[in-house]
Amino acid sequence: MEHIVTFDTNKQAITATTGTLLTEAAHEAGIDLTQPCGGQGRCGRCAVQVTEGSVRSRSTLRLSPEDVAAGYVLACQAVVEGDVSIHVPPQEALERRLTTDRTVAEVQVPAGYDPAVQPICRVTLTLTPPSMDDQTDDWSRLQTAVRQETGIGELQVSLSLLRKIGSVLREGEWQVTAVLDISHFPGNFGVSGKIIDLLPGHVPTDTPLWGAAIDIGTTTVSVWLVNLLTGEVVQQAAEYNRQIRRGEDVISRIIYASKGNGRAEICDLVLETINGLLERTCQRANPSQGHKEEKPLSSLRPCGDNIVKATITGNSTMIHLLLGIPAESIRLSPFVTAVNHIPSLTAKEVGLAIHPEAVVDCLPGVASYVGADISTGVLSSGVDDSEQVSLFLDIGTNGETVLGSHDWLVTCACSAGPAFEGAGVQHGMRATRGAIEEVWINGETYEPTYRVIGDAAPKGFCGSGLISLLAEMFLTGVVDKSGNFNHMLPTKRIRQGEHGWEYVVVWADEGAGKDISITHVDVDNLLRAKAAIYAGFEVLAEGVGFPLEAVERVLIGGAFGKYINVEKAVEIGLLPDMPWENFQFLGNTSVLGAYYALLDPQLRDRVADIASRMTYIELSADNSFYEAFTSALFLPHTDMSRFPSVAKEMMKAE
Amino acid sequence: MEHIVTFDTNKQAITATTGTLLTEAAHEAGIDLTQPCGGQGRCGRCAVQVTEGSVRSRSTLRLSPEDVAAGYVLACQAVVEGDVSIHVPPQEALERRLTTDRTVAEVQVPAGYDPAVQPICRVTLTLTPPSMDDQTDDWSRLQTAVRQETGIGELQVSLSLLRKIGSVLREGEWQVTAVLDISHFPGNFGVSGKIIDLLPGHVPTDTPLWGAAIDIGTTTVSVWLVNLLTGEVVQQAAEYNRQIRRGEDVISRIIYASKGNGRAEICDLVLETINGLLERTCQRANPSQGHKEEKPLSSLRPCGDNIVKATITGNSTMIHLLLGIPAESIRLSPFVTAVNHIPSLTAKEVGLAIHPEAVVDCLPGVASYVGADISTGVLSSGVDDSEQVSLFLDIGTNGETVLGSHDWLVTCACSAGPAFEGAGVQHGMRATRGAIEEVWINGETYEPTYRVIGDAAPKGFCGSGLISLLAEMFLTGVVDKSGNFNHMLPTKRIRQGEHGWEYVVVWADEGAGKDISITHVDVDNLLRAKAAIYAGFEVLAEGVGFPLEAVERVLIGGAFGKYINVEKAVEIGLLPDMPWENFQFLGNTSVLGAYYALLDPQLRDRVADIASRMTYIELSADNSFYEAFTSALFLPHTDMSRFPSVAKEMMKAE
Repeated sequence: MEHIVTFDTNKQAITATTGTLLTEAAHEAGIDLTQPCGGQGRCGRCAVQVTEGSVRSRSTLRLSPEDVAAGYVLACQAVVEGDVSIHVPPQEALERRLTTDRTVAEVQVPAGYDPAVQPICRVTLTLTPPSMDDQTDDWSRLQTAVRQETGIGELQVSLSLLRKIGSVLREGEWQVTAVLDISHFPGNFGVSGKIIDLLPGHVPTDTPLWGAAIDIGTTTVSVWLVNLLTGEVVQQAAEYNRQIRRGEDVISRIIYASKGNGRAEICDLVLETINGLLERTCQRANPSQGHKEEKPLSSLRPCGDNIVKATITGNSTMIHLLLGIPAESIRLSPFVTAVNHIPSLTAKEVGLAIHPEAVVDCLPGVASYVGADISTGVLSSGVDDSEQVSLFLDIGTNGETVLGSHDWLVTCACSAGPAFEGAGVQHGMRATRGAIEEVWINGETYEPTYRVIGDAAPKGFCGSGLISLLAEMFLTGVVDKSGNFNHMLPTKRIRQGEHGWEYVVVWADEGAGKDISITHVDVDNLLRAKAAIYAGFEVLAEGVGFPLEAVERVLIGGAFGKYINVEKAVEIGLLPDMPWENFQFLGNTSVLGAYYALLDPQLRDRVADIASRMTYIELSADNSFYEAFTSALFLPHTDMSRFPSVAKEMMKAE
Repeated sequence: MEHIVTFDTNKQAITATTGTLLTEAAHEAGIDLTQPCGGQGRCGRCAVQVTEGSVRSRSTLRLSPEDVAAGYVLACQAVVEGDVSIHVPPQEALERRLTTDRTVAEVQVPAGYDPAVQPICRVTLTLTPPSMDDQTDDWSRLQTAVRQETGIGELQVSLSLLRKIGSVLREGEWQVTAVLDISHFPGNFGVSGKIIDLLPGHVPTDTPLWGAAIDIGTTTVSVWLVNLLTGEVVQQAAEYNRQIRRGEDVISRIIYASKGNGRAEICDLVLETINGLLERTCQRANPSQGHKEEKPLSSLRPCGDNIVKATITGNSTMIHLLLGIPAESIRLSPFVTAVNHIPSLTAKEVGLAIHPEAVVDCLPGVASYVGADISTGVLSSGVDDSEQVSLFLDIGTNGETVLGSHDWLVTCACSAGPAFEGAGVQHGMRATRGAIEEVWINGETYEPTYRVIGDAAPKGFCGSGLISLLAEMFLTGVVDKSGNFNHMLPTKRIRQGEHGWEYVVVWADEGAGKDISITHVDVDNLLRAKAAIYAGFEVLAEGVGFPLEAVERVLIGGAFGKYINVEKAVEIGLLPDMPWENFQFLGNTSVLGAYYALLDPQLRDRVADIASRMTYIELSADNSFYEAFTSALFLPHTDMSRFPSVAKEMMKAE
């Protein structure tokens, strides 16, 4: 049966029979959809949107539920079954997801967010001027006006605000606008608060109030600029943490900070990073066309001083170093932090380039290697709020893992090492332009194809590339289940190199200028890393007596998790073997949780509750860990019954 | 009848008959007691102490109740009536009272002060070190230990303390001493507090904890160093406010502070003054002989960082300028302050050179010209705690006056001008060395005698000297009740000078190098000043419908009040005409109140209550004030029935 397929790119309609792949139909219409994975439905680069009609889709791997809801399908996995209209998104829209500094992702304002009871509010006040009959002092007069307008009885005030009250009241001729933060008095909602700022005149009530949610990653710092009146995320920006120049991982930064002037320098570097991002989000949020009036509205555009609240999340080391708190005890046995629950601070104290009196909440962490980023991740992923038992993980140097539900939460950090972050591997690199992020190996020729971030010449492997490569090597027999190279295979790509056996993915003449290979040592490192993470799952599950296979959801957070290929991660035994639909990729759950906590004091308190409730299991002190680790040092595992789908695939391959 | 009189100065005993004046007996024994007032019982310089036996004393004017209780008498007013032993205090002990920087006065620890429930406490803690089985963070571990030791559940902590907790815990090998301030949680006494400092090791519990009570006068700044464990005032020091170089009175300082960099400069000047005094008290309090051990005790001697709490009082302008709060509105109609009730601050914020995290309470004032110094004066004088109706006054530029009891309090400030502070008078000066502080005029020769502060060559008149001189001129007829000079009197001392009629007290050849006189213009200024103050009393009394003559106590605070001669002040109509015993001279009631508030959070809260309860009457907006003022522009008053004792004395003189 013939159907009409229309593509918006060139407005050309073609006819196609039922069952024709959309990629084929597109080719017919003169459109070449990118397919770096070779049409296996794994890379997501051939995503298109069905705008009219419908198609039958075999797999929507790498598409978010929102994408699917919006009609997106993978062209290589979808077949024609009727007349359809197809929107082909510009390639850069897809590419953009792979650069560090992303544009605004679709972020949902948390359900139930009510701007009317927001923790920050702006009130316009008209005061009775003082007279010889009423010589009340300015501050009492202002408090009375606030009380009459809002019912807030007790106001905290800073010395710097007291210094300017008199002039603002007079400049505004006793008409002023106060910015109040009542988020720190949840028990007394509406009864007490803090006055953050006072502005002369009546500022229109719909003028945005700005807040910032900040996530300090060891590698990447993310800042979201939020309109507190609507809850909307107006801008997002991310950048490498400038501390990287003083060490790639937390340990080397702790050591650097413990010497000489290191602590101050390390602190300054992350503040520079954050403040630079804050400035960037503000600049972008300012429309180039001016407002109707330049004053006083112009002064209320987002800019440092108009950001009146911030939440900060990050791992425990990052939070310590930001605040200039010595972090040495984090790296030395018995690995304790100086502080997990940090009291509210002001921006001035922290050094953030926002309103100096803005309240800054550094969200609470659990332990040295399970920080606030995990607490906020649990919040935003809803692990603590679900009856389902979820496994939440953030794969990085430490592979923080949480297992639990609304009844219980256990967590651990696996010292996986930085292999999945591209370090500890000869040709490893961070997930930047030039990194090979996915590899496919032909099972007959052992020739690889690969996809490079930014479509640049390949330079090395990032974490997802390594997972993909290891899985393909295993499935094609390049390495056996112990990770040993099969040097009997008929390919020049397996060879004896400087560091023993290796498999060459890129020849020097393919643009890299050098051979890019993975060595026996690299494979060992990756095996240890994935074994540590998987063993962590087991220890958590055993610790609470909950069978790992009974986990209902696997929630993967973190920037890295966003690009991981689940199928391959399961194939190497990094992730437990479960149906696709049980896995969810949540992106930066950490900053999302910080954003929730920014908007809603009750959600902020829930982060504290999560941090307090989570039972931390120290793996290095756990006897069962070593056994679980040893069993997991194979591809995918010693116990193949844990990986039935992989076993099935291997049978097929044989 | 003969008695044996023994003087300790030269151990010589003489015999004297009943009724012999002690001054005569002393002369007999070869001891010349100073009598600048000529033996009239007015100057207090001939005070001696009866150590055995007793004498009959006609007047104890200028002796404190404590002095009298200790056996002090005025030698010129006491006669022998039995065998007695007399201690003649060294002259410098009497002189000392007249210098700015006094030594420790006898200060009573407030009744009911219980060091066991003091608002600052030091607790020694032994923590369980962390282990792989207990990876609690340092701050939670410390909080738990504090809670177990004290029951204090919630602790506030500063970022700077969080930065050092880890190293202190380890340096002390998990034995530490915490300094806690629980004074700001009177409602939750023992439930929440602030941790001020943490020291390694166990500091002996009897090691003093230091506090500072600070009084910022326009002219003089006073600092008391207090051992918070015992409540004892260990050192006192006072010095001219270094702001004086930028203006003698509050108005000129406000103007100076409002221009250019003036606000910062004025703030720095008073901080320099306070910090210099703090250093001086600490140095003096450190015994020159070292402690048994140099460490860690030496670090707990009083020094900036070991002062862990401070209270500050002063007039509203002084408090504003200290905190860098613009004070312009204080001097401009309708004369309002920026803030009367200042929230608790830290020493770091204020700029005090004490422990940076020490809580600093700037005590509350009532109005622009009735400041915290009056609130604390009311507290320490007990006006608000008595069933008796008291008139409390602090005579200076503004002559702040409070009338009231524990049921009601009204207050006003009379713009008396600086005449009583030595300004606005041709030969006026502050009460320093060389100032004539008391004058007597012979009613027949019109020749004066006078007493000079520091027994130096006379340079001019201080406030008490002017009161004394005006009273003597009036009683001897040198001026009439309108203040006009009687130039018909047979004396060269009344003469026509550059500024009209004047009376010469000191001839140039008496050591001053110039004639020192009081002019007609000076007399007018003094009349206006005293009329303003007296009119203030009347307006307060009328305002509440309480007859001025029914006042049961007149309490005179302030450094100036300490040296005023009541008799003469009544003679010129500055003070109401009442029996001597109704007057009490209380010295620096302001710093005394700050000291009370330092020791006891309930007393600090009582200052706030006093400030809130006091009804402020603005005299410049009060119609009855002008009338009362005009009536008071005479010596002593238009209405002589208000001054019966003066009328009687005048009758005698005639």
